[in-house]
Amino acid sequence: MKAEIITIGDEILIGQIVDTNSVFIAKELNKIGIDVYQITSVQDEEKHILQALSVASKQVDVVIITGGLGPTNDDITKLTLCKYFNDSLTIDTEVLANVKALFKSLGKSISQLNKDQALLPTKATALHNKYGTAPGLYFDEGGVIYVSMPGVPFEMKALMKDEVIPRLKQRFKRPHIFHKTVLTYGMPESDLAEKIMPWEAALPAFIKLAYLPGFDRVKLRLSARGENALVLKENLQLQLEKLETILGNIIKGYEDEEDLQNLIAKQLTKQNKTITTAESCTGGKIAAELAAIPGASNFFKGGIVTYATITKTEVLGIPPAIIDEFSVVSAQITAEMAKRAKKLFNTDYAIATTGNAGPTKGDSDAEIGSVFISIAAPNRQETYAFNFGNGREKVTEKAVKKAMLLLLDDFLLEEEKQNK
Amino acid sequence: MKAEIITIGDEILIGQIVDTNSVFIAKELNKIGIDVYQITSVQDEEKHILQALSVASKQVDVVIITGGLGPTNDDITKLTLCKYFNDSLTIDTEVLANVKALFKSLGKSISQLNKDQALLPTKATALHNKYGTAPGLYFDEGGVIYVSMPGVPFEMKALMKDEVIPRLKQRFKRPHIFHKTVLTYGMPESDLAEKIMPWEAALPAFIKLAYLPGFDRVKLRLSARGENALVLKENLQLQLEKLETILGNIIKGYEDEEDLQNLIAKQLTKQNKTITTAESCTGGKIAAELAAIPGASNFFKGGIVTYATITKTEVLGIPPAIIDEFSVVSAQITAEMAKRAKKLFNTDYAIATTGNAGPTKGDSDAEIGSVFISIAAPNRQETYAFNFGNGREKVTEKAVKKAMLLLLDDFLLEEEKQNK
Repeated sequence: MKAEIITIGDEILIGQIVDTNSVFIAKELNKIGIDVYQITSVQDEEKHILQALSVASKQVDVVIITGGLGPTNDDITKLTLCKYFNDSLTIDTEVLANVKALFKSLGKSISQLNKDQALLPTKATALHNKYGTAPGLYFDEGGVIYVSMPGVPFEMKALMKDEVIPRLKQRFKRPHIFHKTVLTYGMPESDLAEKIMPWEAALPAFIKLAYLPGFDRVKLRLSARGENALVLKENLQLQLEKLETILGNIIKGYEDEEDLQNLIAKQLTKQNKTITTAESCTGGKIAAELAAIPGASNFFKGGIVTYATITKTEVLGIPPAIIDEFSVVSAQITAEMAKRAKKLFNTDYAIATTGNAGPTKGDSDAEIGSVFISIAAPNRQETYAFNFGNGREKVTEKAVKKAMLLLLDDFLLEEEKQNK
Repeated sequence: MKAEIITIGDEILIGQIVDTNSVFIAKELNKIGIDVYQITSVQDEEKHILQALSVASKQVDVVIITGGLGPTNDDITKLTLCKYFNDSLTIDTEVLANVKALFKSLGKSISQLNKDQALLPTKATALHNKYGTAPGLYFDEGGVIYVSMPGVPFEMKALMKDEVIPRLKQRFKRPHIFHKTVLTYGMPESDLAEKIMPWEAALPAFIKLAYLPGFDRVKLRLSARGENALVLKENLQLQLEKLETILGNIIKGYEDEEDLQNLIAKQLTKQNKTITTAESCTGGKIAAELAAIPGASNFFKGGIVTYATITKTEVLGIPPAIIDEFSVVSAQITAEMAKRAKKLFNTDYAIATTGNAGPTKGDSDAEIGSVFISIAAPNRQETYAFNFGNGREKVTEKAVKKAMLLLLDDFLLEEEKQNK
């Protein structure tokens, strides 16, 4: 079962908006076992849309179209669909009543353009749009389903969940699909791919492996697909166990697509502990990641950014003599920062970073790319040294991720020790 | 001159990552007058990639491919390009030396998979990847340019700017295209669109106007395209002057797509002043934005994140009585935070934020979405109240942007006053 998503509108093609609609639609389709074969963004132009529809109809079973259903002139999806299906428009009285009711509830007068939203292709089933005037359109032609929705994200999302997914579930016999994601911890990432190669090669055909990006660490997703749910689940479990034997530390109970900061939040909440940050090169990014978690106030008390050297002495109270001795970007100063922030904010944990993100050496003599990270825990503290290469943004980003991973490792390795 | 962007990789099609690479590429191509005709995301699958390449080659002059160039098994772009061009792989010694040097600088051992990154199609020109092991590939075949780049954003961005754009500029005769971007300041945004409507309607056909999003403020881009550079430039200047007469305060010398933080950095550097931050709801994001600017250590001394109420009293020293009186999310507390951070970090300026980003009310009784921002300057301080609606991420993001804009306004309005 394959789908193609076609997004219509110039905004995406000139790089003005990020296409998050496709992300949502792809996720929803995947969950019910429909593969997204292709995502295509095309201009608001009849000929181009017709061509994209024609290509899609030959390669997939479901075509989901968003955008170009509004009342303005450059929104031409509806007319183009009419042409594509050799169809004509007719007033849908139910949709017209909905448009009128919506304008009445907003206290606005209704224009002819708005009324025209109720003109629908005769071959289409109207999908009720709870939040807007343009209904979704559903066509079942030549064995292919075509769905057209407005591009406004919350209108599209409601249509997708309430109208489209239930119809697709009913229309197609789909295979079962199960995913398991594995995040490794406490091990170097360098040669993991080679290590698991023989295991990967021996995977049964109905289980697919994907390397997921974004964690600066090996994160793998196994997807099993087929007719027999029990067989799929058993085999997924079996492969997960094999993988654990090969790799050692993998996070159990790790939920699909869960963010690193949520894993950390779970650990802190479970332990009923608090945390603070003392950042130099990461400039507040670690604090921001922690603060972004809903409910952060349960474990994140706050943090400090001591960017200039003088703030390390004057605000955190690190003796200038130590800085002179070891230099401001050093394991010693990073460890001091973590220790002192933990005390200042009165927390159980602290993460500290110093480093030189470049492009110039700034306050320190440290090599560009060199970063120190210190994790202070209730009864232990570890400080690590890295070189993340060049590129200011990249160095900072890597430092943030590495700090979060080291913190998570600390939690998990400590838990393991406690359990022994 | 038309381009198609093809992104390869299952992550986009399963909805796991948002395709921001295409946004960046589309913007860069647009700037040099190349229209993006289509963006296509396809699976890591030979047959599918071949088909996408074949479709693209018939409809555009430039095909930009990202993703699928890494060292792991599911990255098949390079082999597929070989097949598409009926080509074979050969070792590129320069690329091999680069891979080796990169691993050496990171102190890591190099695997065969990594070395294989230097195997390139013979018809390809290697594009030097400053930040990673996989080079970009550039083909000029049958009148169409094909560029393939790794999907890692910072690697792709550097390749695009340093290698791809200069080559495309040289390869194609394009019309001249000039952009001017205008950012307004110190004025309400509400009815600007109506105000400029007559001017917009009278623009010559070769000048296009675009409303740019992302600043929560009217930001306009004028693009002039044509054969005569002088005429284009003169007309752009003329229209800018007209716009200034209509709108009043617009930022002069504002460079295209310049980031807000760079405008702030320029002002602070010009004034030789320093700044600090005291953040609650924004959790360190403002500090991170300031620290992200190269050379930040010249003006950004550091900042504090007082997320939990107790850190506002214990670390910043705000009397608990004031918090009890006004509540922790209030104009008064935000003003106190700015004032005290300015003193603690001994700076000229301070930005402070408090707010309730939701989803629950947390430490305060303030309505969800309500945010206070205070800007403390050498001899003045202003505190502002907003409601940014619901959605934790959206509220925080808007608060960060608004704080930066208010700071910039403060600089510019003060400068104007001084000049009178």
